[in-house]
Parts: sequence; structure tokens; C-alpha cells
Amino acid sequence: MASQKMWAVVAGVGPGTGASVARRFAQSYSVALLARNPSNYEDLVKEINASGGRAIGISTDCSDGASVAAAFEQLKKTEGFNTNLAAAIYNVGGRFIRKSFLELTEEEFETGWKTNGLGGYHFSKAVLPLLLETEKASPQFPPTLIFTSATAAMRGGAMFSSFSTGKFAMRSLTQSLSREFGPKGIHVVHAIIDGVIDIPRTKEWKFDLPDAKISPESIADSYWHLHTQPRTSFTNELDIRPYCEKW
Amino acid sequence: MASQKMWAVVAGVGPGTGASVARRFAQSYSVALLARNPSNYEDLVKEINASGGRAIGISTDCSDGASVAAAFEQLKKTEGFNTNLAAAIYNVGGRFIRKSFLELTEEEFETGWKTNGLGGYHFSKAVLPLLLETEKASPQFPPTLIFTSATAAMRGGAMFSSFSTGKFAMRSLTQSLSREFGPKGIHVVHAIIDGVIDIPRTKEWKFDLPDAKISPESIADSYWHLHTQPRTSFTNELDIRPYCEKW
Amino acid sequence: MASQKMWAVVAGVGPGTGASVARRFAQSYSVALLARNPSNYEDLVKEINASGGRAIGISTDCSDGASVAAAFEQLKKTEGFNTNLAAAIYNVGGRFIRKSFLELTEEEFETGWKTNGLGGYHFSKAVLPLLLETEKASPQFPPTLIFTSATAAMRGGAMFSSFSTGKFAMRSLTQSLSREFGPKGIHVVHAIIDGVIDIPRTKEWKFDLPDAKISPESIADSYWHLHTQPRTSFTNELDIRPYCEKW
Amino acid sequence: MASQKMWAVVAGVGPGTGASVARRFAQSYSVALLARNPSNYEDLVKEINASGGRAIGISTDCSDGASVAAAFEQLKKTEGFNTNLAAAIYNVGGRFIRKSFLELTEEEFETGWKTNGLGGYHFSKAVLPLLLETEKASPQFPPTLIFTSATAAMRGGAMFSSFSTGKFAMRSLTQSLSREFGPKGIHVVHAIIDGVIDIPRTKEWKFDLPDAKISPESIADSYWHLHTQPRTSFTNELDIRPYCEKW
Repeated sequence: MASQKMWAVVAGVGPGTGASVARRFAQSYSVALLARNPSNYEDLVKEINASGGRAIGISTDCSDGASVAAAFEQLKKTEGFNTNLAAAIYNVGGRFIRKSFLELTEEEFETGWKTNGLGGYHFSKAVLPLLLETEKASPQFPPTLIFTSATAAMRGGAMFSSFSTGKFAMRSLTQSLSREFGPKGIHVVHAIIDGVIDIPRTKEWKFDLPDAKISPESIADSYWHLHTQPRTSFTNELDIRPYCEKW
Repeated sequence: MASQKMWAVVAGVGPGTGASVARRFAQSYSVALLARNPSNYEDLVKEINASGGRAIGISTDCSDGASVAAAFEQLKKTEGFNTNLAAAIYNVGGRFIRKSFLELTEEEFETGWKTNGLGGYHFSKAVLPLLLETEKASPQFPPTLIFTSATAAMRGGAMFSSFSTGKFAMRSLTQSLSREFGPKGIHVVHAIIDGVIDIPRTKEWKFDLPDAKISPESIADSYWHLHTQPRTSFTNELDIRPYCEKW
Repeated sequence: MASQKMWAVVAGVGPGTGASVARRFAQSYSVALLARNPSNYEDLVKEINASGGRAIGISTDCSDGASVAAAFEQLKKTEGFNTNLAAAIYNVGGRFIRKSFLELTEEEFETGWKTNGLGGYHFSKAVLPLLLETEKASPQFPPTLIFTSATAAMRGGAMFSSFSTGKFAMRSLTQSLSREFGPKGIHVVHAIIDGVIDIPRTKEWKFDLPDAKISPESIADSYWHLHTQPRTSFTNELDIRPYCEKW
Repeated sequence: MASQKMWAVVAGVGPGTGASVARRFAQSYSVALLARNPSNYEDLVKEINASGGRAIGISTDCSDGASVAAAFEQLKKTEGFNTNLAAAIYNVGGRFIRKSFLELTEEEFETGWKTNGLGGYHFSKAVLPLLLETEKASPQFPPTLIFTSATAAMRGGAMFSSFSTGKFAMRSLTQSLSREFGPKGIHVVHAIIDGVIDIPRTKEWKFDLPDAKISPESIADSYWHLHTQPRTSFTNELDIRPYCEKW
């Protein structure tokens, strides 16, 4: 494995996209895995370390500024992290609430914002100074900040106002960050994942056609490709969906 | 003046759009004016009442659920309000923060959401049951809920992540509400006001061309037109900008 | 009727939107009605002239530059037309082809472009110099050019590549014209009509809900409202759809 | 080089993106290069053949159905082409006309459509049956059809109505094709190239910042990555722009 001194941090590691992204970036970098529940990263940390990579996990609630600050305090004490953060992926999913607007509590409505908007703020505040620091040292690939988003970032559906307001806000945040930090060499991406992801929880979901669920490994491959784009040629937004998805 | 028994409620009454909208709807309806600071509506309430209309003002902070609840508690005790709400306009502007992302405090970042997203939630929760009630009585025009938005709902600019995340969230909310409550006869509109509004605060702002600032009266005329659209023909989104605005 | 000396020209007059727009504008202006087939405007011309308005009809194929030139040659000889064109509405519909891409002939594929893109070009080339001329005389309302478009301008559906490429091109054209001629005082509008219009041809189409078809009269009311917007406050794009339309 | 029996066809080969895409795909496939002027592909054909790849060039005007048909007639006689087309890239640029709408001739206005819309139609009609044939044989990567587009596909600028109507139409076409042929396993992509490409013609164009021009090699790398996406995870639209591009 190459350049183990570089780091990637993945927030929102669970059984799906986060884990696949972690494994993919761990082929080249040390990886820091953040999730609220340690059970979400513990096995993965062991797996990556056992297979010749390097991984650490930290219990973190990204919607809580103090929790994010504590996680990065710890990370900055980790050898090499401080000056070698190459990539940061914000993959925090949050609850997917489907409910009539009039039945939605304030707490439920705000959860979409807290996970996707406010959480994105805390994570970006933590990683951007580090990515800017890395950029000064002319790394192989431009420092990269990728947000995992959804079709709900483009269309506010009935019953989905909590999730959708959060994802619209996330999209807006990525645009503001692209326009401010792109010229400083940081690559910011809004990745619209449109479809059901093939994870244990969706194993039983049946579709008429085969391969109707997005493979998290291929999302990870695309994220890695985005990371390797030179600064002459940044992709700031792309969609990823199964061939048979209606859109 | 006609059908004074119908009501319109305007949240976010100040010297600009809110006041013009209030005056325009007061030509046909009784109007309830909400603003945090009573000085924002007191003169207008007097003016409308003195000229043969009917207006009341209530100090309300729309980002605070308890404050909105209290305001509507009071309104529901007002004669006729309960069963005759014809239109609701959410025109709360909030602070327009221009700041590098890394210098933005959490409180500053969240203010965009609180004003445009969360405030829109509280206001919509209060008015939608009333608008649905009105709808049952086959009113002259479909009950209408209009949100005053901005170009920042369509594009996240550098330095504007607070305002823009809030406006993206507002746009998303209007789409969710349109799709859920449109089929129930409620007309929900996202109005993208793109440009400088001609109000006392912008009086000294100079442009190369005349009429370069949006007249709040014409915004009000368009809002009234939107309200009169029959349910066969709802406009859910439109832009309004000066002829010479770059876009 | 007021200011019969001002003119409106409506291209694409048939039994639906075009006729309603013609009647609406004929309440204030003289109207010139263009359609390929005289049977599409003859009765309407009689109706408007009989009811105190003024109308003339000219057989015109808007996708044919020579035909448009001939029509305007004739119109310019009509009293007052030359210096008093207040509004121009491009409402040419064209064939709505639903066909697998591989079965689509070149002629079929190009028909969407010819009707919506090229026809829009010929019509705009003819009316813009006249609208600019009118603008010099400080008319009551800014000279207005409205295009009737469709959801197919925003989304390329399977089987609809002919219609949709044409409508995308039409939308693009309206943006270019807005940005060039807006600063010269001309109001250009892209109106996205999303749904089935209530015309004789769709009379038998049944929906689960009442009022599920767009009333052409209300489209005409909105077009007239757009025409009355002052130059401080132009709407360049709006959608119009039934309350129960899925979008 | 691997699987030389698979083919890629690149329409619009010149000194920039087309040549880079041809070189990139020639690392794995035989390549057929189409351009109106043989001088645009002759050296490249020699270069690829000399370096162990396989390339042929055919003079083709993609806006002319007969020319495209003749080119593919010839290609189908080429060993292996008929059943092994893995990727098709439509990279025809056309003239970039900057002109006031009122000065634009019909021929100039239509050139954007002919290159981007009609040319895309002819090319797609020729390659889709072949890509569908390839798909039946379960190729390593899903058969892929990529269109090189531009920001003008998203925004109709003043003075750019010819180019922009063409690019809007191209975008629409890619959506129709994605939605029809995606479910049949064909991967269709609209690639929005936003910025100046670093080619001989732009060599002297100076910018304040280094790397302000898009490297055609990195576009080619992204196109190849898109081609390798499995059908569970198709990207249908992405943008590519320099880090310092205003957008």
C-alpha cells in the first residue's frame, strides 16, 4: 500500500457506503472512521488493520460541535494526521422520516437539518483548515471533501420535508464551499446517490430487474476517482444511480 | 372594500415587501401582521385601519414555535379569523451574513436555517390547518401560502452559506408542501425575488440604470395575482427581478 | 375597450391557449392572430371583431422564415401595428411525438426543433425590432414576449426526444433573449405549462379529481398579468399546473 | 494492451478533448476516429497505430445523416466492430458564435442545433443498435455513450443563442436516451465541460492563476472512469471545471 502517511477521514461509517469508502481509501491512506455508535466501525477498524492498512475509529456525533471538536482533538494527536489529511468524506445519513407535514414534530423536522446541514458545517469547519494545510505541501491529489447526498437534494417530495430540507441545505453548503475553497485548491463534491443501496438492511428488497441496487463498492470507486482529479478538472456534482432507476 | 371577512396573515412585515403585501391584501381582506419588533408594524396597522381596512399586529418570532403558537392563539380569538384565512405570506428575511465559512460561528451559520427553514415550518404548521378549513367552504380564490425567497435558493455563493442553506431549505419545504397540500386545494408558492428591493435602507444604493431596484408594490401585485389563480392553474415557482439584473 | 391602438400578436392560435390569450389581450389591444391553418383563427377573428374588439388573422408557418416575413410585411401595412406592438405571444405547439428513439425518423426528430426552436427564432426576429420601437415611446406596460412552453423544457423523458429537445431549446432561447433584451426594456417570459389543457380535444379525458385540466382562460389571465409587470419586476420564468398534477 | 477486440468510436476528434479521449480509450480498445477534416485525425491514427494500439479514421460530417451512415457502413465492414462496440463518445464541437440575436442569420442560429442536436441524433442512431448488441454479450463494462457538453447546456447567455440552444437540446437528448436505454444496460452520460480547455489554440490565453485551463487528458481519464462504472452505479451527468473557474 502506498503513502500510508496520508490520511482520509470518513464520517458516517455504517454497513454501506461509509464502509466501502473506508476500505477503498484505506488501500492508499490511513483512515479515521467516525460514527456515533462504535459498533458501526469496530469490526471495520480491525479488518483494515488486519489486512495491512491502518484505521482508527472515534465515536462522534457530527451534529454536535463539541463532539466533532473532541474527535479532531484526538485525531490531531495521531501521528501524521495534522499535516496529511488528503480526503474527507461526509457520509452521515440520519433518519429518513416519511410523514405528513402536519404530523411532523419540530424535533423530527429539524433532524434533517441537523444531520445534513449543521453536521456538514461542523465537519467542514474541522477538516477544511487541515485540507488547506495539506494543499500547501503539493500533494499527489488535490485535497478533497465529498458529501454523500441524495435525490432529495434536488426535489422536495411530499412527506419528506425533513430529509429534503436537510439535503437541499447540504447541496447549498457544498456549492458555497466549492466556490470559496475551490480557488484555494480544495476539491468539494456533492454526490447525488439516487436509489437503494445494496446493504444488509435492503437485502430483502426485491426489484423486477437484477442489479437494481447501487453497489457501495462502486460508489467508493467513483469517490476515489473524484479524489484523483487534478485541479484543472474538478467535478463538483455528479449523480450515481442504477441503470433501471426511474428519474 | 370587499369581503373583509376573509383574512390574510403576513409574517415578516418591515418597510419593504411585507408592508406592500399587507397593503395590497388589505384592499380585499382583513390582515394580521407579524413581526418581532412592534415598531415594524404599528404605523402600518394604523394606516390600514385609518384608510377603511382592517389590520392587527402581533409581535412574533417565527423561528420560535412557542411565539408562533401564542400569536395564532390570539388570532384564533379574533372574529372571523378561525374559518376565514384566505392567504398566508411568509416574508421573514433574517440576517444576510456575508462571511468566509471559516469565520462563521455556529450561531451565525444556523441563523439562515432558523429564519427560513425552521421559521417556515412553524408558520406553515400554524396556517395550513386554517387554510384547509377555509378550503372546505369553497372560497372565491384557493387558499394560498406564499414564501418570499431569493436567488440564494438556487445557487450557493461563496461567503453566503448561512443565508443560502436557509433559502435552499425554504425552497425544498415549499415543494414538499405543494406536493402534499396542492392536491388538497392549497396553493403554495416559492417566489424568487432576485435583486435589490427599493426600500428606505437601499435608497442611496446607486445603479447605472434607472428602475434597477424591485418595487415592493409590484411584488405585492404579483402575489395578489398568484392568489387569484384558480386551482386548475397554480404557479408554484416564479422569479421576479429588475429588467437590468444580471442572472 | 382601452388603447385599441396598441397591438398584440399571437402565434399559434387554436382552440386552446392561443384563443384564450387572444381574447384576453383583445380586451385591451388590437390582436393579430397567426396560425398555419386559417380555420384555426377565422371564427375567433369574427368573434373578437363582433364583440367590439379588433382582430386580423394571417396564415403563417412560423418554422418557415419566408412565411413569417410575409406575415409581418402584411402586418406592418396595418394601421398602427408598426409602432404599437405591445405584446407578442409564441404559442405554437407542434406535434407531440411519442416514439422510441430508434424508430424516430430524422424528419420526426427535427420537428420539435423546427416548431419550438427555429420557429421561436423567426418569430422573435420579427417582433423584437417592433417591441424595441414601442419601448422608445414609454408605453403603459413594458413590451412583452411570452413563450408557451412545457415540462418537457425541464426534463427529457424517454420516448419524447423530439418534443423535449425542442422545448429545451426554446427555454434556452428565452434566457438568451431575456439577458440581451431585458436591459433594453423588453420583458421575455418562459411559461412552463405543466398538465393537460382543457380544450375540446381533451374533453373526454377523465381524471380522478375535478378541475384536473388547466383552464386556458387562467393561462391567459396570467399572461396578461405578466405583461403588466413593470420593468422593476419582471418574471422570466414561471410554471402553471393543476393543483393535483404530479410533478 | 488489453481486449483489442473491443472498439470505441470518437466523433469530433481534433487537437483537444477528442484526441485525448481517443488516446485514453486506445489503451484498451481499438478506436475509430471521426472528423470532417482528415487532417484532424490522420496524425493521431498514425500515432496510436505506431504505439501498439489500433486506430482508423473516417471523414464524417455528423450533422449529415448520409455521411454518418456511410461512415458506419465502412466501420461495420471492419473486423470485430460490428459486435464489439464498447463505447461511443460524441465530442463534436461546432462553431461558437457570439453575436447579438438580431444580427444572427438563420444559418448561424441553426448551426448550434445541427452540431449538437441533430448531429447527436445521427450519431446515437448509428451507435445505439451496436451498443445494444454488445450488451447482450455481457461485456466487462456496460456499453457507454458519452456526450461532451458545456455550461451553455444549463444557461442561455446573451449573445450565445445558437450554441446554447444546441447544448440545451443535447442535454435533453441525453436524458431521453438515458431513460430509454439505461434500463437496457446502456450507460448514457452528459458531461458538462465548464471552462477553457488547454489546447494549442488556447495556449496564449492567460489567466491570473496557474492550471486555469482544463487538461484534456483528465477529461479523458474521467470519461474512462465513467465507462468502467457498473450498471448498478451509472453517472448520467457531471460537471468538470478548473478549481478557479467562476460558476
